[in-house]
Amino acid sequence: VSESRYERILDLCKRRGFFFQSAEIYGGVAGFIDYGPAGARIKANIINLWREMFIDSFPDLIYEVETPVITPEQIFKASGHVDHFTDPIVRCPSCMRFFRADHVLEEQGIPAGNITEAELMSYYDKGVKCPSCGATLGKPERFNLLFKTTIGPYEATTGYIRAETAQGIFTLYKRAYEVLREKKVFGLAQIGRVGRNEISPRQGPLRLREFTQMEIEFFFDPINISCVAQFENLLAEHLTLLTEGSQKVVHETVQEAVNSGTVSNLYMGCLMALGQRFLVQLGIPEENFFYLEVPKKNLPHYSRQTWDLMVKVDRWGWVEVAGYSYRGDFDLKSHAQHSGEDLSAYRAYDRPVMKEKVNVTWDPKVLRGKYGTRTGEIIDALKLLKPDEVLEGMRNGFVVAAGQKISISDLTIKAEVEKEYGERFVPHVTEPSFGVDRILYALIDTGFMEREGRIVLRVPRRVAYPQVGVLPLVKRDGLDALAKKKVEEIRRYGFTVTYDEDGAIGRRYARLDEIGVPVAVTVDYDTLRDGSITLRDRDTWNQVRVKGEDLEDALCRFLRLNAQLSELGTPFTSQGENT
Amino acid sequence: VSESRYERILDLCKRRGFFFQSAEIYGGVAGFIDYGPAGARIKANIINLWREMFIDSFPDLIYEVETPVITPEQIFKASGHVDHFTDPIVRCPSCMRFFRADHVLEEQGIPAGNITEAELMSYYDKGVKCPSCGATLGKPERFNLLFKTTIGPYEATTGYIRAETAQGIFTLYKRAYEVLREKKVFGLAQIGRVGRNEISPRQGPLRLREFTQMEIEFFFDPINISCVAQFENLLAEHLTLLTEGSQKVVHETVQEAVNSGTVSNLYMGCLMALGQRFLVQLGIPEENFFYLEVPKKNLPHYSRQTWDLMVKVDRWGWVEVAGYSYRGDFDLKSHAQHSGEDLSAYRAYDRPVMKEKVNVTWDPKVLRGKYGTRTGEIIDALKLLKPDEVLEGMRNGFVVAAGQKISISDLTIKAEVEKEYGERFVPHVTEPSFGVDRILYALIDTGFMEREGRIVLRVPRRVAYPQVGVLPLVKRDGLDALAKKKVEEIRRYGFTVTYDEDGAIGRRYARLDEIGVPVAVTVDYDTLRDGSITLRDRDTWNQVRVKGEDLEDALCRFLRLNAQLSELGTPFTSQGENT
Repeated sequence: VSESRYERILDLCKRRGFFFQSAEIYGGVAGFIDYGPAGARIKANIINLWREMFIDSFPDLIYEVETPVITPEQIFKASGHVDHFTDPIVRCPSCMRFFRADHVLEEQGIPAGNITEAELMSYYDKGVKCPSCGATLGKPERFNLLFKTTIGPYEATTGYIRAETAQGIFTLYKRAYEVLREKKVFGLAQIGRVGRNEISPRQGPLRLREFTQMEIEFFFDPINISCVAQFENLLAEHLTLLTEGSQKVVHETVQEAVNSGTVSNLYMGCLMALGQRFLVQLGIPEENFFYLEVPKKNLPHYSRQTWDLMVKVDRWGWVEVAGYSYRGDFDLKSHAQHSGEDLSAYRAYDRPVMKEKVNVTWDPKVLRGKYGTRTGEIIDALKLLKPDEVLEGMRNGFVVAAGQKISISDLTIKAEVEKEYGERFVPHVTEPSFGVDRILYALIDTGFMEREGRIVLRVPRRVAYPQVGVLPLVKRDGLDALAKKKVEEIRRYGFTVTYDEDGAIGRRYARLDEIGVPVAVTVDYDTLRDGSITLRDRDTWNQVRVKGEDLEDALCRFLRLNAQLSELGTPFTSQGENT
Repeated sequence: VSESRYERILDLCKRRGFFFQSAEIYGGVAGFIDYGPAGARIKANIINLWREMFIDSFPDLIYEVETPVITPEQIFKASGHVDHFTDPIVRCPSCMRFFRADHVLEEQGIPAGNITEAELMSYYDKGVKCPSCGATLGKPERFNLLFKTTIGPYEATTGYIRAETAQGIFTLYKRAYEVLREKKVFGLAQIGRVGRNEISPRQGPLRLREFTQMEIEFFFDPINISCVAQFENLLAEHLTLLTEGSQKVVHETVQEAVNSGTVSNLYMGCLMALGQRFLVQLGIPEENFFYLEVPKKNLPHYSRQTWDLMVKVDRWGWVEVAGYSYRGDFDLKSHAQHSGEDLSAYRAYDRPVMKEKVNVTWDPKVLRGKYGTRTGEIIDALKLLKPDEVLEGMRNGFVVAAGQKISISDLTIKAEVEKEYGERFVPHVTEPSFGVDRILYALIDTGFMEREGRIVLRVPRRVAYPQVGVLPLVKRDGLDALAKKKVEEIRRYGFTVTYDEDGAIGRRYARLDEIGVPVAVTVDYDTLRDGSITLRDRDTWNQVRVKGEDLEDALCRFLRLNAQLSELGTPFTSQGENT
C-alpha cells in the first residue's frame, strides 16, 4: 500500500459510501460532496447529539428555530455580507485562470493566513507569478462569496443563498422575543445548509461550497451578566486556550478566563466549555483540540472577539470545526436600522430612577422680533436642547441655541420629575457556530485505524451507523433465519442494525469494522440450542457470550452507557477473525 | 371572535411561534416561512418519525443519503427540469403584473386544475381579464420554476437550487449500487430543502417557494418483482384509492390493488400503505385522507403513474401532502445518456442461456479486387451485420452488405456457442415524496380545538414539543425549587420539557394547551411531603396523582406507548383549570 493515510481514508469513504464528490457521474463539481448510506446517517447522528447537548439540555433557555436557505437581499445587505463577505481573487492575464490571491502567496511559502488587505496588495505590487503558467499576476480584487439568485418571475427580487444560518435568527429575533414573553437571556439555535461560493475550493471535504452549520445566537444584556442556573456546572470547566500573540496554550476555568478578560463574556465561556464536552463525546482526544483566538486585525466585520475551535486531523493539521464570536449588538442594530423595526429589549432598573423631564416652548413672533432672519436656525437648535442644557439654562437665566444666548424669559419651560422603571437596549450576542461536515471528517480521521492489514473505523458508539451487525455463523441449518429474527428484535429495541450472511465470518467482521459498526451479534449452533449469542467488540475484537434474554440490556449498556464488553457476558474464545 | 378558524390558527402560529412569514421585519417575502421555537422542533420530530418508519424499519433495504441543494446544470438538464419544470405565466399589458395563467382561470370559476396546455391557450385566445386592473391579458408563456445561480467565480458554471431531492439520489445511484454490493432491490432516501420559484405563491404555508422534502427512490427490476420479506406485513393493508375518472373511493388491499393493475407495482403499493400508517401515527383520522390518481394527461414528464396522498384541511379542502410516482427508468436512462456512464444493474438468468456468437473477418484486398470503389462502403456494412444475418448467410452461401451479395467464401466466419448467465438492465423506480411543511400544517389544522374559549392544540404526543410542562402550584415555599429539580429529572429521562411559574395555575395550563404540550406535571404541597405529583392530560384536562418514583414509568407509558392518563395513577380532583 503505497498511498498516504489520507488517500486510504478517502478511498474508504468512497468505496464504503461515507462521502464522495457530488455529481460524480458528470465528472464532479469542486466544493460539493454527497453522503452515502454510511455517512449520511452518522452526520444525522452528530446533529442529533448536538441538538441534545446544546438545545435539549437547556429547557427554557435555548430554543431551535428554522428559516429558509434562500434569503431576500435586504437581509444580507444589513448583515454586511453584500459588502464584506469577500475573498481576494486574482486572474492570470496570460492563462486567464482565477486564483484566490492569499492562497497563491501561501503556496509560494508566504504565510498569508492572517494577512491584512494592505499587506496582500503590497506583495502583488512587487509581482507574484501565476502558479499555473508563470506569468505575472495582476492586481487582486474582492470577490463576493454569496450565491446569488432571483425570487419570483423575471425582473423579481434579488435573493442569496444564506452564507450563515445566523441571519435568519436575527431577522426573527423580534418575533421570538415576543413569543418568549420578553425573556432576558436566551439562545436561538439553527441547524441547516449554507452556501459559500469559494473561488477555488481544495482540501476535499474541508472546504466546501455547501455545508451544514449548527449555530446558536445567544442574546443577553451586556450590563447585567450573571450566570444562568443551567450554565453553573460549566463555570469550573477548564478551557484550552491559545490567546492572540501567545506561543503556548493555557488551561483556565471558564470563570478564570472571563475574570481575566481573556474570554470576553461569561456566556461565551460557558458555551466554549460545552463545545469541548461535545468533542469529547465524539471521541476526539483532549490533546487534539484547543481554542485559537483570532487576531484582532483578522476579525470578521461583525465580531468583537472570535475563538476558533481547532481540531487536529492527519492530513491538514489543525482545522477549524467551530467559531465562537462575540457579535455584540452589530447585527440587531443593523437590522433595526435597515428594517425600521425596534429590535430592542427591556431592562428593568433595580429600583425606579427619578428622571427630570423638561418641555420648552416659545412664541415664534417674540423670537423673530429679537433675532430676525436667524430665528429659523435658532428654533431648530432649541428643539435639540438636551434636558441638562435646559436645566442649566434655568439656573443661568439663559440657554445657548445656535451660538446665541436666549433669555429664559422668552421661553416657556415646564419641568417635572418622573419615575422610570427601566429602559430599552439592544441585546448583545454570543455565537457558537459549528460546521458539521468538518466534524464528521475529523471523526473519521481520528477513528481510522489499521490492524493486521485491515481497516477499523473507531467512530464513537453513540453516533455510529448502523450500531449493530447481525451475522449467522453460517448460512444454513436455520442459523440465517434465526439471525434475521434477531435483526427484527434488535430493531425493536431502538437500535439501527444490519445483517450480513455473505462469505466467511472473518470477512464479514472485517466489513463491519471498516464502516465502524461497534458491535456484532453472532448467531451459531449454540444459539439454536439455548438462545445465547456472541457479542464482538469492533475495537478490541474480543467476544463475550450473552444469554438471549440479556441481549437488550447488554446492547443498551454497551451502546448507550459506553460499558466495556467484558462487563456484558462471559469471555468467549474468539471465533472467526481469520476465517 | 369574528375571525375565521383559519385566521385564528394563523394567529396562534404567529403569537406562539409555530411559523410566520420569513423576513417579517422587512415586510416579508411571499412563499417563505420561518419556524419559531414551537414549530421548528415539531417539524424535526415529524422528520425523525418518518426516518424511523421509512428508513430504520427496513434495515438493509432502505438507506439514507444526502446531497447538496446547489446542483450543477447538467443534472437538471438530464432530469428534464430545465425543459419541463414550468408553470404558465401571463402578464397584464396594462398594469404589468404577472399571474399564474391557470390560477387566473380558476379564480374566475373555470376548473383549470387538470387543464392541458392547449385547453389553457384556447381560453386565453378568447380573452381573459386581468384580475387586478381588468385589461385583457396577453398570451401565456412557460416560466421555469428552477432558482438559478452560478457556481465559482464570474463566468462560472450555471447551477440550480434543486427542485426535488430525487435527482441527487439518481446521480449517486451508480456509487450506491457498488457500495451496496450490487443489491437487487433497494431504496435510497433523502430528507432536505428544495426550492421552487413559484410565480405568485398564495395559500400561506401550503404553497412555499422553499420547503422540506422526504423522498425515497426505490430501485427494482421490473421483470422480477416479488415482495421483499420486510414489506410482507404491508400486503394486506387496505389502501383508500380514488382512481382516475372514478367518482368514489375504493378500499383495496395492496395485493388486490396491484393484482387488478390499479396500482402499477407492488413496491409502490407497499410504500403507499406505509404512507397511510404514517398519517395515522400523526393523528390524521382515516376519513381525512385518500390517494388520488393523477389523470394520465397531467402526469409529470417522468411519471408513468402518480398517486397524490390527499389530506383534508379546514381552510383549503383536500391538499396533497405526498406524491407517489412510478418513474420507470426515465431518470437513470436519461442520466446514463447525458453522463455517458453505465447506470445499469445486473439481472441473473434463472438458468444460463446459450447464445451463438459469430465473428466475421475478411481480406480487404480480396474485396477490393471484386467491388472496387464500393469496398469501403461494403466493409462498413459488414461490420454492422447482426449474428442472425451472418448465421442465415452461412446457410444461404452469401450475406448482403450495402445491397451487395457477398459470398461467404470471401469471408472468414467463426461461430461459437457461449453460455450467458445474466444481462444488464436499467432499474425501475418507485418514488414516495413527502412535503414536511404541509404535513406540519395539516397536523396543526387537525389538532386545533377550542374549548371553553381556550385553544387546545392536540398534536400527537410523539411529535409534540415540548413533551412535558412542569408547574409549581405556587411560586413560593420551595415549590418552585422542587419543580425545577423535576425539570432536570424529566430531561434526564430523555423528554423535552418546559417550566412555567408565572401567573395562576389555570393560565399556565392554558398556555401549555395552546402549544400542544401533552402532559403537565404539577408540584404542590403534598409533593413536599411525600414526593407525589399530579399529571394533567392536555386533551381531557383530567388529572391523576402519581408517586414520585413512578414518574419516569408514567411518562414513558403516556408519551411513548400512548397510554390513557387514567391508567397511570389515582384520579385527582381537578386543580386549577379556572384559577
